[in-house]
Amino acid sequence: MSGERPAGSVTIVGLGPGAPRMITPEVTDALATATDLIGYGPYVARVPDRPGLTKHGSDNREEIDRSRHALSLAAAGHRVAVVSSGDPGVFAMAAAVFEAIEHGDPAWRELDVRVLPGVTAMTAAAARAGAPLGHDFCAVNLSDNLKPWALVEKRLRLAAEADFVIALYNPVSKARPHQLGRALEILRASRAPETPVIFATAVSEAHERIDTVRLGEAVPARADMRTLVIVGSSQTRLVARKNGPAFVYTPRSAPPEASS
Amino acid sequence: MSGERPAGSVTIVGLGPGAPRMITPEVTDALATATDLIGYGPYVARVPDRPGLTKHGSDNREEIDRSRHALSLAAAGHRVAVVSSGDPGVFAMAAAVFEAIEHGDPAWRELDVRVLPGVTAMTAAAARAGAPLGHDFCAVNLSDNLKPWALVEKRLRLAAEADFVIALYNPVSKARPHQLGRALEILRASRAPETPVIFATAVSEAHERIDTVRLGEAVPARADMRTLVIVGSSQTRLVARKNGPAFVYTPRSAPPEASS
Repeated sequence: MSGERPAGSVTIVGLGPGAPRMITPEVTDALATATDLIGYGPYVARVPDRPGLTKHGSDNREEIDRSRHALSLAAAGHRVAVVSSGDPGVFAMAAAVFEAIEHGDPAWRELDVRVLPGVTAMTAAAARAGAPLGHDFCAVNLSDNLKPWALVEKRLRLAAEADFVIALYNPVSKARPHQLGRALEILRASRAPETPVIFATAVSEAHERIDTVRLGEAVPARADMRTLVIVGSSQTRLVARKNGPAFVYTPRSAPPEASS
Repeated sequence: MSGERPAGSVTIVGLGPGAPRMITPEVTDALATATDLIGYGPYVARVPDRPGLTKHGSDNREEIDRSRHALSLAAAGHRVAVVSSGDPGVFAMAAAVFEAIEHGDPAWRELDVRVLPGVTAMTAAAARAGAPLGHDFCAVNLSDNLKPWALVEKRLRLAAEADFVIALYNPVSKARPHQLGRALEILRASRAPETPVIFATAVSEAHERIDTVRLGEAVPARADMRTLVIVGSSQTRLVARKNGPAFVYTPRSAPPEASS
């Protein structure tokens, strides 16, 4: 922000679930005026090349390094776009950038930093199945890279007790094949086997796959790194159809006995 | 879907928080090809008039009637767009439409019904403040029009125990002035007075207002019908700046003792 060098900026943008038709115009504009693009390689690759744009793709696990890089470039006058899939504020790059600001060069706090929201995986997946998030819900990141697994289990138990619809982000990875099985086991202890569970994979892309099963028969093998899982509440309904997969929705209303 | 009349459809779209720059291209396209537009009057009014488009604006509390109207028109061959603000699957029209389908004319189940996601109020509000939803969170609709208030209180207590960041949708209305005060009281019983609370009103519109206060001093009067409230977890941070309001974010990581 000093007069000695051009004013740089960091804009943290959400590319949505995958398809360009789900990217908001303000994100498209930010990508069109950026000088530098920073993010996980496959997300950076989604943005078309053009003269004047330098792409800095990186590995998936380097979020803080990536954030510092973005802030350093902005401090030097670059217009940096940091790309995430989905919404950048939900288990994605925005929190990493603010963490880097808090613990980094005090001058970074005065940079022009903004976040542009996107369509998050949870609502994109819900839309494909019907309206499973039509009533109170929670979102839990199943990765225990940055938090104790005991905390995840505690949250799942309390979320089940609260009868929230539960969206599970990052249900599995190569390094974490077992968490989803354990999460489903915990939820089976308090929810009926008939509870609908949606496995939504690669939403809006060519190989999109939406499977709705019952909690009693849900197996982790249905999920991969591109899957978002939604576990229904006690009220979530399946509406069968002749011409296609059932609609899944959670009614806006809850019965009086639900509060006991 | 019969051959006797033109195939109608219902597309339930999310207009995002307010500004056109946050409407996805697929929603814009759906609005451009609809023959009929159905929704709460102010949302319908956001869509420009054009020849061939009939607008059916209605009152806020008639969601099921509105859904039946949309399905009846689609069954008669119309291409109907049902509009919600934000994301249509989050406390909005999509659940009402599927409820109408489940309990209505069996032929409605075979209609072409799809949901197009949008930027939901929670992530739009979060983006304006920083990244408060960077860690596990829940969303609770404070309206008790369709569920017992005791259930809302139970969920808030369990969400506090789970240390979720908590997004409160529909925090107040003319008919419900007291719920937000009670909700904040419940959360104050288990969260520190220093916990950041964001009041985000009319996000992305000309009269947008983002206020971040501490839980100990949060008063319901800061909220109106256009407000989304986000209450931080025990880990949510404020990063002070000289040149602007503090950034608010919730770190991706949680300390080991958080699971106790």
